[in-house]
This record gives sequence, C-alpha cells and structure tokens, in this order.
Amino acid sequence: MSNRSVGPEITRLIEMMSKLPGMGPRSARRAALHLLKKPEQLLAPMARAMADAAQKVSACDVCGNFDTLNPCAVCQATGRDEAVLCVLADVGDLWAMERSGVFRGRYHVLGGCLSALDGIGPDDLNIASLISRAGQDQVKEVILALNATVDGQTTAHYVADQLENSGVIVSRLAHGVPVGGELGSLDDGTIAAAFSSRR
Amino acid sequence: MSNRSVGPEITRLIEMMSKLPGMGPRSARRAALHLLKKPEQLLAPMARAMADAAQKVSACDVCGNFDTLNPCAVCQATGRDEAVLCVLADVGDLWAMERSGVFRGRYHVLGGCLSALDGIGPDDLNIASLISRAGQDQVKEVILALNATVDGQTTAHYVADQLENSGVIVSRLAHGVPVGGELGSLDDGTIAAAFSSRR
Repeated sequence: MSNRSVGPEITRLIEMMSKLPGMGPRSARRAALHLLKKPEQLLAPMARAMADAAQKVSACDVCGNFDTLNPCAVCQATGRDEAVLCVLADVGDLWAMERSGVFRGRYHVLGGCLSALDGIGPDDLNIASLISRAGQDQVKEVILALNATVDGQTTAHYVADQLENSGVIVSRLAHGVPVGGELGSLDDGTIAAAFSSRR
Repeated sequence: MSNRSVGPEITRLIEMMSKLPGMGPRSARRAALHLLKKPEQLLAPMARAMADAAQKVSACDVCGNFDTLNPCAVCQATGRDEAVLCVLADVGDLWAMERSGVFRGRYHVLGGCLSALDGIGPDDLNIASLISRAGQDQVKEVILALNATVDGQTTAHYVADQLENSGVIVSRLAHGVPVGGELGSLDDGTIAAAFSSRR
C-alpha cells in the first residue's frame, strides 16, 4: 500500500498494528478499518487509552509489575502475605496468577528468562533485587513459578542456587497433567512428570 | 481482571483491544503487554498514530474512501479514468482493489450492502450519490464490484436497477475459480459459475 490511494496516516496505523503479536498485515488492515469507521467512538478513545497508559504505567521498583502506582498495588496491599514471594518471568504470568486467584503473597518479576541463545544473562534480569528481597526477615518462602521450558527451568535452577544460603524455603510449581487436559495430546515429558509426581 | 492488581488504565487498554476484529481477551492481553513493555518505543507512538488518524482521516464526500484529503487522493488524481466508476461495499474493498493495481478509474464506496436482516435499506447506503455521479456526462461505465454473497448480489441487483435508465454501461466482476484455488475445495456455486462462464 505504498500507493497514495491510502494516505500516510492510515498506512502508518496499519503498519504499527501489524507488528502486534498475533496480528499480520491482513488482520491489521481489518482492525484499522474497524477503528477508522468510528473515529469518535473507537479510534480516538483507544488513542487516549494508549497515551494514558504510556504516560502513567511503569514497572514497579520493588517487584517489576506494571502499574500506575509505584510501588505497585500488589506491593502496597496490606492484606497479602509478606512471607511468600512468587517469582515469575513476565508481567503476563503475574496477570495469569492473579486471575487464578490462588496466590495471596507478593510477587517478583524477573523480566525474562536466562537464555544463552538470546544473550540474556543474570545481570539482564531482576535477580539481584530478588536475592536482596529474599534476605529480608519476613520472607520465609520463594516459589519459583517459571515456565516449564528449557530457559525457564535453567533460570529456576540458577535462582534456586543463588538462594541456597539465604535460609528461605525454595519451592517450584508442580509438573503434571493440565486440568481439562487429555493424556493423548500431552507430550512424553509431561506424562513422565505427572507419573513420577503421582499422589 | 477486576482485581486491583491490574490497574484501571491497563484493564481499559486490554478491554478496548479485545474488541478489535480478530482479537480476543487472550491476544489482547498479549498485545497490551507487548506495548506496555516498550512505552516510549511502541505504546506512545501507536497512541499518536491513532490520535493523528482519528483527527485527520475522514470519509471522502465524493466517493466515501477514507483519507486525510477531502476529496480523497483518488478523486483528486489527474491520471485516472473519469469514464469508469467502480462501486464497492467497503473501504477495505477499495484497498484490496488498489493493491491489485488492476483498476485506474474512480471509486464509489456504498458503505455496506443492503440487508433485510440487519435493517440496512437503500437510504443507509451512498446509493443516491452514486446515481447522481453516474448521471455526469463523463461517466460511461459503472462496475459493480460487490461481494458474491446474498447481500452483495442483492445490492448489485438493486443498484443496476436504479442505473437502468441512466445510459451508462453496468458491468459486474466475473465469478469463477480464484487464482491458485483448488477445484476440490470450492463450493458448488462457484464451480457452476466458472463452468457456465467458461471461455
């Protein structure tokens, strides 16, 4: 669409939307058209919501969560257990954990996983701040809720190693059959893990 | 995510994105997170691009295309054939037509198709302005490039009917096998149309 039949503002909007995860050129065009059809009701409000978020939201200095507050609402909340830290790779994982409603302690977002391939080392992640938080008196347990991937498990090993002499209990999420999961569609590793951890 | 662990600005951004065509709650969260991770490089520029488009882009008074110019760039272009009008349901169809590069005349966007089910009648579409444009001396042919759906073909019939006494040639896109299409995956109607229009 280099053609002038589509103006530069529209072309730019489509190009930016096509770079969103899960979007391609076709779906970006469809989404942009959907917004352009209702500039006052959809496009302008979305522009404001994005500008608002870009201006006000930042990573929490304590745990790495995204929020307009800093420290974030989870770090400031009074009703949450100070004794347990849940370590996550990503803010998206924090959102998922909060949706599950199962955890009422504090979080620590590493900001990724160790990856030799992507050149991500311990200094690129919020590991030093985790070690320092885990050293505080009130912290009794650190739950490593990292992805069950090679990078996630490498990171979990590394963090567990770093915490070895801190006196806190280090635990990990259980591996097993996902709720609603069918055995036939699971990989061998998951079945083996679920089998060896059977209760 | 009614929970305060995710702030209202982020919740609102995710909600708005989840209403885009092709997006759901999960992909909206992923896209919002992707943007929030780079507020300066991604989120703020996208907010500006959207605000820019919302402010500057409008529907062309002549043909219904979206552009920052009014009349739009296609209507203003000097190199295009004034004698042929291509009638489309939607601006997205105009973009597709321009990408194909096959048409060098003028456009007329109806803004939808007639639909008894959705309560869209002739007065809801830019049909009156089409009849008036088709009545201009320089216009010799009107190409009805409408979807090969029931609503699209109903609309084509209606428009052709309205243009019957205007003295212009009314043509329609050919039906047939899409280029690259496999016979086995086509519906009966398309095969029948391709067969009866064989050359």
